[in-house]
Amino acid sequence: MLADVLHVPFADADDFHAPSNIAKMQAGIPLDDTDRAGWLAALNIYAHGMLEKGSVVIACSALKEKYRAQLRQGIPDPAVKWIHLQGDMALIHGRMAARSGHFMPPALLASQFAIYEPPSEGMVIDVADTPENILQTILLNMELLAEWGVVGLGVMGRNLARNLGRNGVSLSLYNRFVAGKEEKVAENAVAAFPELANAKAFESVTAFMASLARPRKILLMVNAGEAVDEVLSQLEPLLSPGDIVMDGGNSHYADTRRRQQQAESQGYHFLGVGVSGGESGALNGPAIMAGGAPEAWHQVAPFLEKIAAKDAGGSPCAARVGPDGAGHFVKMAHNGIEYAEMQLLAEAYSVLRRELGHPPDEVADIMANWTEDGLRSYLLEITIRILRRREGAGWLLDVISDKASHKGTGSWAVMAAGKLGVPLTMMTEALLARFVAAMRDERQAWSAAYAFTPDRLSVSIAQLKQAYQLARIINHQQGFLLIQSASKEYGWSVNMAELARIWTNGCIIRSELMIDAQHFFATTDDILRHETVVQWVRTCKPALQQTVSALGFSHRSYPCLMSALAALNAMTTANSAAHLIQAQRDFFGAHLYERTDDPGGKKYHTDWEDGGQEI
Amino acid sequence: MLADVLHVPFADADDFHAPSNIAKMQAGIPLDDTDRAGWLAALNIYAHGMLEKGSVVIACSALKEKYRAQLRQGIPDPAVKWIHLQGDMALIHGRMAARSGHFMPPALLASQFAIYEPPSEGMVIDVADTPENILQTILLNMELLAEWGVVGLGVMGRNLARNLGRNGVSLSLYNRFVAGKEEKVAENAVAAFPELANAKAFESVTAFMASLARPRKILLMVNAGEAVDEVLSQLEPLLSPGDIVMDGGNSHYADTRRRQQQAESQGYHFLGVGVSGGESGALNGPAIMAGGAPEAWHQVAPFLEKIAAKDAGGSPCAARVGPDGAGHFVKMAHNGIEYAEMQLLAEAYSVLRRELGHPPDEVADIMANWTEDGLRSYLLEITIRILRRREGAGWLLDVISDKASHKGTGSWAVMAAGKLGVPLTMMTEALLARFVAAMRDERQAWSAAYAFTPDRLSVSIAQLKQAYQLARIINHQQGFLLIQSASKEYGWSVNMAELARIWTNGCIIRSELMIDAQHFFATTDDILRHETVVQWVRTCKPALQQTVSALGFSHRSYPCLMSALAALNAMTTANSAAHLIQAQRDFFGAHLYERTDDPGGKKYHTDWEDGGQEI
Repeated sequence: MLADVLHVPFADADDFHAPSNIAKMQAGIPLDDTDRAGWLAALNIYAHGMLEKGSVVIACSALKEKYRAQLRQGIPDPAVKWIHLQGDMALIHGRMAARSGHFMPPALLASQFAIYEPPSEGMVIDVADTPENILQTILLNMELLAEWGVVGLGVMGRNLARNLGRNGVSLSLYNRFVAGKEEKVAENAVAAFPELANAKAFESVTAFMASLARPRKILLMVNAGEAVDEVLSQLEPLLSPGDIVMDGGNSHYADTRRRQQQAESQGYHFLGVGVSGGESGALNGPAIMAGGAPEAWHQVAPFLEKIAAKDAGGSPCAARVGPDGAGHFVKMAHNGIEYAEMQLLAEAYSVLRRELGHPPDEVADIMANWTEDGLRSYLLEITIRILRRREGAGWLLDVISDKASHKGTGSWAVMAAGKLGVPLTMMTEALLARFVAAMRDERQAWSAAYAFTPDRLSVSIAQLKQAYQLARIINHQQGFLLIQSASKEYGWSVNMAELARIWTNGCIIRSELMIDAQHFFATTDDILRHETVVQWVRTCKPALQQTVSALGFSHRSYPCLMSALAALNAMTTANSAAHLIQAQRDFFGAHLYERTDDPGGKKYHTDWEDGGQEI
Repeated sequence: MLADVLHVPFADADDFHAPSNIAKMQAGIPLDDTDRAGWLAALNIYAHGMLEKGSVVIACSALKEKYRAQLRQGIPDPAVKWIHLQGDMALIHGRMAARSGHFMPPALLASQFAIYEPPSEGMVIDVADTPENILQTILLNMELLAEWGVVGLGVMGRNLARNLGRNGVSLSLYNRFVAGKEEKVAENAVAAFPELANAKAFESVTAFMASLARPRKILLMVNAGEAVDEVLSQLEPLLSPGDIVMDGGNSHYADTRRRQQQAESQGYHFLGVGVSGGESGALNGPAIMAGGAPEAWHQVAPFLEKIAAKDAGGSPCAARVGPDGAGHFVKMAHNGIEYAEMQLLAEAYSVLRRELGHPPDEVADIMANWTEDGLRSYLLEITIRILRRREGAGWLLDVISDKASHKGTGSWAVMAAGKLGVPLTMMTEALLARFVAAMRDERQAWSAAYAFTPDRLSVSIAQLKQAYQLARIINHQQGFLLIQSASKEYGWSVNMAELARIWTNGCIIRSELMIDAQHFFATTDDILRHETVVQWVRTCKPALQQTVSALGFSHRSYPCLMSALAALNAMTTANSAAHLIQAQRDFFGAHLYERTDDPGGKKYHTDWEDGGQEI
């Protein structure tokens, strides 16, 4: 087991005895110093050879100081680590009696104890303990236990590991072995990246687990879904009480809730850890939002805070946002907000380029002005860089297909909103826009069947900018509302100001608006009623209205700008036309309705077919 | 068991013996005719008394014709049903020996067989069979088995039962007993409705199950969710191979798929049956869409076709739309379409009343004109009636709260679309509009914080009508697309023309447009490319554009009209701005993109940070 963890060969000194020695022992005659001299010389030669290639673990009954001197002859001090496995005669006799097929009869044991000289150097280990504990003690003594384990060395796992390594965390890295597909993944990562030079790579879960200091801190970076359960089922038999397993993937929060319960019932800790920032964030400083028990968080926080992005005040963008699924839920909401932010940028770009006729570099210039004017965000910045990217004489963007894709978190956010009853219009429209974008073949056929001819629209850049600004406010307000609803539903007590703070850097939706949101949440839970927001909305709304009105005449699709206006109006309408819907539901389904003149919430039914007075 | 099914008391003739008779038998002495005369006279008196109150089941060893004449003395022929339970002496001796505490010793049995005279009338039953089978045989002989069972007598179950009863179907009705809440529910239904006068009411599942002809046809009308599983777990031990259980509630299609698998593994049939039409449809003719095995459908179809609405050609609006969950899926999609249709009507009403200033009766008049002009639908018709309804000097509508509610199917449709990747914008916006409508308290606060002042808009009634018309087309196209996607995903082969046909009457979304859709689907799967639809869309689009443009200046929310335009534009745009989204995803997440100049679908990645040429 030790050799496995150290990645070196193992040798049993018993295999080095000459036949004459073996015959003697089989005959029940103890060996003497002369018998042992050749044997120890052979082992010494072997050790020299192995040291040239690397190292070796040798198990040997080196009973006397003299024997040990013979064993190490010519080998420099620091290259030898002595581990004395000590036990009383009864215990060892019992173990010898239990083994079969060995040339040494248990009766010889007494002769060995008779000449045994206790060691004067090296560590002494009581062999009465379990092999696992003995191994831990040895590794601990040798200062060979890693502080942190990473499971899964895909791009995100690898970059987080590099980030940890760069921050001086000692690492064990494990990646499964899949023949022909995933071979030596951890080993290759160690070889490829200087930050990982001191990390140990494993393809054996057992050796990986043995290499970690307890309580173990293990970060899973595997695909969300079944893979997480699969890894957990491999780790669980090897975990010790108090170990901490972190799932850093985009797992569904309901799965995380289930896994945390399972972990608690088995005595280890499970943290659902949302990590945002993409590849580059993982490497250089992501935002980290954890869900789980505070006592588990406090043990891993010093490490995660090291690798996290830092906010404007220098505090790490890493926090425990609540219990169980809270971390993965807020990450999901983050991605939902991101969907709508990206769609809004696509719509703004579409207006500037396609409705108003600006080429990409001019669109980039216009957007660059926006960054100077309170709208700075990571997504806006990368959009500008994308818009400026050439390919040959043209724009790279123009050869990129619009067949958009989506991963789980966007639709999960929409479904969570459906379950919680949150009117999450903007991220929903953004998700559905991706769906229709994915239907590229159908769109070709439909567009051919209709062939609408576009007109130039009357909207100004200044109006568009304010429309974009307001739409982003609504998008963020909706995303926060989703989190607040879930926090209420599941009793998470998410601190919204703290959440906004850790989203001010590292994550994909970092922006000046997020910094503002952090400050808004310091004084109110309802940012739509924060006086600054009210002012902004009132200032920008005419521009959003003008923009939507102008876009009404486009033959292109602007679902997020339109739904931003519709959502704002819906939220600020005290008495909506939905009373008609309540009447319809009561008409055909007897679903009852409340009355405005009875604030008690009593339910009423009208027999609409009874010929009551109709005009 | 027979008495339970017939709802009459049961009497054991043994309980009518005089103490002297019992003593004689206990002593091992057989009774003679004289001993039995008083006993039979007592039973005859008892039978007369019970007949005055109703009826009774009496079990009696009436061995001789003479005894039987004494038993029935003075009772008219049709009031007596003789059931002779016949078995050989060994069998009956064995059963007597197995019972304990009875005064008659098995030794006396031979004396009874000695005087036994086989019956000259009535039915003869072999007691070697199981009690359950004996009961079925008796009820069959008495022509007392019901053709159809209904479980759950809520408003929908009751009305479907009345509809079945009115159509001459013999019924057994079961409703659970919940003390203080659901007591005698089935019995009360039988008492209340003349169509159910011949139906039998049960609060015992066992008696209910015994009362049904095999293969049993049982329609569950209980709440979707756990209640269905609960009822199934009660029924399952009592079901026979080939019995057919129908779930007529709004169950989730995934549950229905699971339950059907479970049913098949247990040897009975399970049909997921969507029923639309609300209370009134259930009573007078609903649309019925079933999912399950054809052989099960063929057995229940004659009954369901009787109670279903009829299309313009007189064919029933009932069909098997596909296997397993297909019926409940299309019902869910139906309800999703319904959500958007209702929201569109609320928006049209809002424009006419609030933007253009027409009072409800004028709005009703305007909408009544629409019904004459190709836009007739059930929902439009009830809207008109709602708008005309007075309360005192005002309108009933104006005291109805806009705190809208929603049930499962709407959000399920949206979630199914999310799972299947269908851009179902309109029903999604309608669902989210209900969510925000439900947040009445929040809206009061937000509206107070903003207090926007509305302006009069420039949109004409004629434009609004065309906008409404086009929005409905898009809504239907999206709803159909959802079904087509699921049909493809699950291999259901849903016949869209047939589905549209059964939705032309009975259901909530019946309309002239649905009749048109039926004809469109006769020639194409893609109705958006049907030439009539292309013409309509091209004709109406300028009006929808004008309407959306005008509504841009409203402070009220019109999410469905706006998303209709956005959806149409998205679908008919060959090259959208989503290429920017693909570039963004590749920038921060290395998610890759396809290129328009490589139709093979190969995935590309750009290293956006590498300082490639940017302008």
